[in-house]
Amino acid sequence: MAQPDETHDEALFSWLKSANQHPDFPIQNLPMGVFKTRDLPPRCGVAIGDEIIDLAKLATSSPFDGLAGEALSTLTGKTLNPFIQLPRSYSAAFRLALSRSLRAGSRLEAIVRETLISKHDVEMCLPCSIGDYTDFYTSIHHATAVGKLFRPDNPLLPNYKWLPIGYHGRASSVVVSGQQVYRPNGQVLRPNSNEPVMLPSEKLDYEAELGIFIGCPSPQFSPLEIEQAEKHFFGVCMLNDWSARDIQAWEYQPLGPFLSKNFVTSISPWIVTAEALIPFRVQPTKYSDRPYVAALNSPFNTSNGGLDIQMRVSLRTAQMKASNEAPVTLSKTSFKHAYWTVAQMISHHTTTGCNLNAGDLFGSGTQSGPEPEEAGSLLELTEGGKKPLTLPNGEQRTFLEDGDEIILSGFCISSSGLRIGIGNVSGQIASTTPGPGAPMFSGQSL
Amino acid sequence: MAQPDETHDEALFSWLKSANQHPDFPIQNLPMGVFKTRDLPPRCGVAIGDEIIDLAKLATSSPFDGLAGEALSTLTGKTLNPFIQLPRSYSAAFRLALSRSLRAGSRLEAIVRETLISKHDVEMCLPCSIGDYTDFYTSIHHATAVGKLFRPDNPLLPNYKWLPIGYHGRASSVVVSGQQVYRPNGQVLRPNSNEPVMLPSEKLDYEAELGIFIGCPSPQFSPLEIEQAEKHFFGVCMLNDWSARDIQAWEYQPLGPFLSKNFVTSISPWIVTAEALIPFRVQPTKYSDRPYVAALNSPFNTSNGGLDIQMRVSLRTAQMKASNEAPVTLSKTSFKHAYWTVAQMISHHTTTGCNLNAGDLFGSGTQSGPEPEEAGSLLELTEGGKKPLTLPNGEQRTFLEDGDEIILSGFCISSSGLRIGIGNVSGQIASTTPGPGAPMFSGQSL
Repeated sequence: MAQPDETHDEALFSWLKSANQHPDFPIQNLPMGVFKTRDLPPRCGVAIGDEIIDLAKLATSSPFDGLAGEALSTLTGKTLNPFIQLPRSYSAAFRLALSRSLRAGSRLEAIVRETLISKHDVEMCLPCSIGDYTDFYTSIHHATAVGKLFRPDNPLLPNYKWLPIGYHGRASSVVVSGQQVYRPNGQVLRPNSNEPVMLPSEKLDYEAELGIFIGCPSPQFSPLEIEQAEKHFFGVCMLNDWSARDIQAWEYQPLGPFLSKNFVTSISPWIVTAEALIPFRVQPTKYSDRPYVAALNSPFNTSNGGLDIQMRVSLRTAQMKASNEAPVTLSKTSFKHAYWTVAQMISHHTTTGCNLNAGDLFGSGTQSGPEPEEAGSLLELTEGGKKPLTLPNGEQRTFLEDGDEIILSGFCISSSGLRIGIGNVSGQIASTTPGPGAPMFSGQSL
Repeated sequence: MAQPDETHDEALFSWLKSANQHPDFPIQNLPMGVFKTRDLPPRCGVAIGDEIIDLAKLATSSPFDGLAGEALSTLTGKTLNPFIQLPRSYSAAFRLALSRSLRAGSRLEAIVRETLISKHDVEMCLPCSIGDYTDFYTSIHHATAVGKLFRPDNPLLPNYKWLPIGYHGRASSVVVSGQQVYRPNGQVLRPNSNEPVMLPSEKLDYEAELGIFIGCPSPQFSPLEIEQAEKHFFGVCMLNDWSARDIQAWEYQPLGPFLSKNFVTSISPWIVTAEALIPFRVQPTKYSDRPYVAALNSPFNTSNGGLDIQMRVSLRTAQMKASNEAPVTLSKTSFKHAYWTVAQMISHHTTTGCNLNAGDLFGSGTQSGPEPEEAGSLLELTEGGKKPLTLPNGEQRTFLEDGDEIILSGFCISSSGLRIGIGNVSGQIASTTPGPGAPMFSGQSL
């Protein structure tokens, strides 16, 4: 990975007023996404201040030369895939050219200004076509806390510190922020029962994760060394891995979570690129009593493999919404606490020969910090539902109730004060409303 | 599902000589796939006798009316996806029109004959773009045999008879028959050791499965009742879920198999449609001490939910190939022994609201029959590697060795003698040959 360059300079000043000192989308960020408007079909954009650059429109002016120009010409379709599959030199060149075009005094101001659309006039879409989705388990604090609920004396399994545990998730049900989440029905084995019942999940939970997009593809049967891995790291978003804990407990042996996770996974709409994250690189937190295994170790990873991405989870209940109260923060943590880094996840994923495609999505696994109040799920915050949370308005929660909205947000602040936003992903729980022909499952006995 | 109709009539006689009494591709089968030739890019085809119908070429003549004609017009691209997403009425109409065009005396003989390409002149491709791949665990004999290796007194987990256990697999690494399989490297915990080592898998295995393709999509948050499920069943192929048992044993707790399975999954090239399978419908074998749960039960499923698809696994070692010996049969079974049916897999998959897309692939899970010699993997046939198989030429096997070729084939024979082939999927094991820049893992200690 490169060092910070002129695109990260905190002194950069844009001709676009709203970009300067913008808490999420200053000129140093330039995240990429796909949006549509009442009149325009889905198209690629870059967020800057309170505006969005319509890249298809920008491309018609061919304002950039060289790699940046070639890169822009791939951004005229309905997804970012043709762009993110390019070698990283293209995205870096595009970032530099776009940054220069947005600076005060740029000769391209008029051309770029013509392409701006207010963020209030758009609806965000999935940023790319997601071929495969993999969910990791990189927070040792989460793994330990969840393990403790099942195995108090031996919470962490023997393999945890040797390799980044992961499993395949469902790509088809990944949705963009704002999509309502219907409480799933499923088989549940209640305590002191031998027979499961089919009912709407009584233990619906969120999981606060970082989403990681793969860029440049990696072919089958060609494992990626850890040193090569970051060439395939395109960028990040926030990800909520909605989970039905009661369904999960009954179904997951012996092959892992399935229906308890695959009904929906929500992501924030903007991809913050690996280039924009350079100032927020940190040394990974060390928890191990020994170094990483050779295949998952590298000097760069040891010194700069971590990312200090702050994460916040907030809840707004239906009652809070009705009385116009602001969401309440449930937890705060940072991805810097993860036991495994992005490079380690990518390299490990290809060890046996699995290929990666542009637009593949990884979830980092629930991110929980070292302190109990930094936990990234209700399962942990309420100790498996045993200790309800009491909210400021007096309401209590063990798991999510109908009408609850969960908002997961992310941002980075560098040691010198530069701040960029990763974005927000929100979802509100709706009671199960069977669609046409859907089974009436509610509470029925099997 | 419909009853057998004129397209299944055993007396049908084709103007194409090689189709009549063809063991795999008689006029009653008409499986669909994608092929390419030295001169032609990938295109859709139907296998008939020793020939393949070039559907893009056929479409230029617009030989069919109505739904069949509309269906044919979707078959001019590089994948079957635009066709298989259509409602089943289209594929049924297309099948009928194609069957009639191939019968002796058809007025379309000259037009269809013009589109034929010899199967010897083509290379088969993946039949469709696979969005998501899910692997089930439907053989109670496999689940019991594998469970016995780990828990001799309690082999079958309590959830097994209540729901079809499944997990998400890797779609990107599904390949078509013939692709070489490189022995994967991975972390393995050897017996009597506390520290894993990285080495080429010493327990590489096959898993004989049925592949099931989803046709008509099912939207998110709209569970499919069991009665509706088969409308979304497009067809089947044979599937080999290559598995590295030593890597699997170390990595799979607590979230399921990951790298031990995701390096490659091989499928046979032709999709035999649900319509072609109608004569081979059977009552599912009953193993349960009680009926299926209500949500997974239906009169049709109880009477006709099973499919009698015969499966054969053969092995040809490098030594056998060198001395020109034929492959040796390792096991025989039938999908009729599966505990769970296709309709139950589809319905269950959508229970919590997961959407299905056209081209999604399910694996049935390893199919093992009730007798030990009917087991669908070496793990079972050798009791975890403890009892080597002795082959007719004197070679022994516990797991697969370099140069071994596994051929999985499938076919159906009705009670009245009609036979159709499902196809073959083969793969030969190659020693690990690191690609450019790939790590030299061989036997190295961590």
